[in-house]
Amino acid sequence: MKDMTSTLPTYEDMLAAHERIRPYIHRTPVLTSSYLNDLTGAELFFKCENFQKAGAFKVRGASNAVFGLSDEMASKGVATHSSGNHALSLSYAAGRRGIPCHVVMPRTAPQAKKDAVRGYGGIITECEPSTTSREAVFAEVEAETGAEFVHPYNDPRVIAGQGTCSKELMEQTDGLDAVIAPIGGGGMVSGTCLTLSTLAPEVEIYAAEPEQADDAYRSFKAGHIIADDAPNTIADGLKVPLKENTWHFVSNHVTDILTASEDEIVAAMKLTWQRMKIVMEASCAPPLATILKNPDVFRGKRVGVIITGGNVDLDKLPWVVGY
Amino acid sequence: MKDMTSTLPTYEDMLAAHERIRPYIHRTPVLTSSYLNDLTGAELFFKCENFQKAGAFKVRGASNAVFGLSDEMASKGVATHSSGNHALSLSYAAGRRGIPCHVVMPRTAPQAKKDAVRGYGGIITECEPSTTSREAVFAEVEAETGAEFVHPYNDPRVIAGQGTCSKELMEQTDGLDAVIAPIGGGGMVSGTCLTLSTLAPEVEIYAAEPEQADDAYRSFKAGHIIADDAPNTIADGLKVPLKENTWHFVSNHVTDILTASEDEIVAAMKLTWQRMKIVMEASCAPPLATILKNPDVFRGKRVGVIITGGNVDLDKLPWVVGY
Repeated sequence: MKDMTSTLPTYEDMLAAHERIRPYIHRTPVLTSSYLNDLTGAELFFKCENFQKAGAFKVRGASNAVFGLSDEMASKGVATHSSGNHALSLSYAAGRRGIPCHVVMPRTAPQAKKDAVRGYGGIITECEPSTTSREAVFAEVEAETGAEFVHPYNDPRVIAGQGTCSKELMEQTDGLDAVIAPIGGGGMVSGTCLTLSTLAPEVEIYAAEPEQADDAYRSFKAGHIIADDAPNTIADGLKVPLKENTWHFVSNHVTDILTASEDEIVAAMKLTWQRMKIVMEASCAPPLATILKNPDVFRGKRVGVIITGGNVDLDKLPWVVGY
Repeated sequence: MKDMTSTLPTYEDMLAAHERIRPYIHRTPVLTSSYLNDLTGAELFFKCENFQKAGAFKVRGASNAVFGLSDEMASKGVATHSSGNHALSLSYAAGRRGIPCHVVMPRTAPQAKKDAVRGYGGIITECEPSTTSREAVFAEVEAETGAEFVHPYNDPRVIAGQGTCSKELMEQTDGLDAVIAPIGGGGMVSGTCLTLSTLAPEVEIYAAEPEQADDAYRSFKAGHIIADDAPNTIADGLKVPLKENTWHFVSNHVTDILTASEDEIVAAMKLTWQRMKIVMEASCAPPLATILKNPDVFRGKRVGVIITGGNVDLDKLPWVVGY
């Protein structure tokens, strides 16, 4: 296996990614809400990746990885381990290129997620719900298929792809003072850092995280990666730890990391629906939740807010069924 | 009371409306879905008025009426009868101008709707749920306040305002073969006719209606207005009958009116959520429902689909709680 994690992506990689993936992604809209502006005292620009192909920003990085492969490499397909939006997005992108996508997923993952991956043509191999089992099963799949591993967030091709989101956001607004995105493994935040540190280095970059999975916050304060074993939060896309490439961007370019409680996350999710008619995943709600919680940080600023995905089960809205 | 219904709006009125209301509305995005394109064999461009201020296209017409008033007329406020999006939108627009908005609403209207109107500053006077009572109570309110009546859809200022939606849609796409919108009283369809009959007369205009409230369909076939007494459909914004001004546009410019069953409406609403992450009102779903039902009409065409509003109660989605 080629060690793709040894190279950091460059600004030029991000520009090349944008050209490469343009046919396979939506240029998602930027929406505003005067109600939320009044409430926060800031001017908020919501970049709506919930309307992205496959329902999340992850398709940017996945498409960049898939369409950047040589024909020879592509012929053996791609592989990853994920039970979330990266699995969906990589399956989508591989399907568009007509190559196989192997996904290792815990057998305990929700049936709906397995169905969705299969719906995009992904080939699932189940593992036990432990890191040991996942790594062993993934190694087998990789050895058998020769497929190219695309890590959900630490892969430089993925980071370069995620960086295209902030490029569009800057093109769609007349200048920003700050951008805020949720942080789990740090793929979107790293892409944001990659793009803005060259394109608009004056723009502050904030990351927002659940209190109950605040490993990035603690890493940022400690100055080295801290990985939690099994955090528990409704924002289930944000449970994963930082890795060396995302840590590089986070530690060098992020202004601050802010956290929100479960209640604050659900309240922000509900407020966004009520006022903007956008149903976001719980994992997308920490940015608005932390803006509401820290008005002094954002007041008077023009703030880009990245809404990362919309793959929520409408039959299980947390303010309806509890959480 | 000045009879505003005696004058039909012109294309220049629509252009003036767009300049007038620009500060008070969103230029809503146009979204696409390759899944729905594959499913229908058409190329669909969804104009997302569900993200409009106050949650619906109605704010276009309401703002045009409110901001077109002289200071003298405006000083006495505006008045209407509506329990739906027009009441919300007129209250919003009046609030932005700082004038009163009087709304006559049946006492049986849902509390949530009354709360929403009051939330935008509207002053509610309740009537009994009958046309006789509504007209009597409205006449009293009008006489007492001297407020300017803004009819929900037959008012030429309202029709001119609604026409700005298709103007934007044409600007946001590279040409269309057809546009389709839901039809109740015909305000949006009339505005669409007003704009396209001058701007792009080659574009076909379709209207979509629930089978269970198909008075516009029957009017169109009969060649004169047919008004139903009390139709019953989940698409509750589409129960009202055509009036003389909207009939003028519908009878002269609409290509055809298509209908959909309740089940087809709910299925289209659910499909739009699943595939586009857009929660639309049931009243917005007939266009997609009729496109799916009549593939031969739309196959191979570039079709603008107006999603008229998003004010749905997420706790009462019809595919979850029944309908």
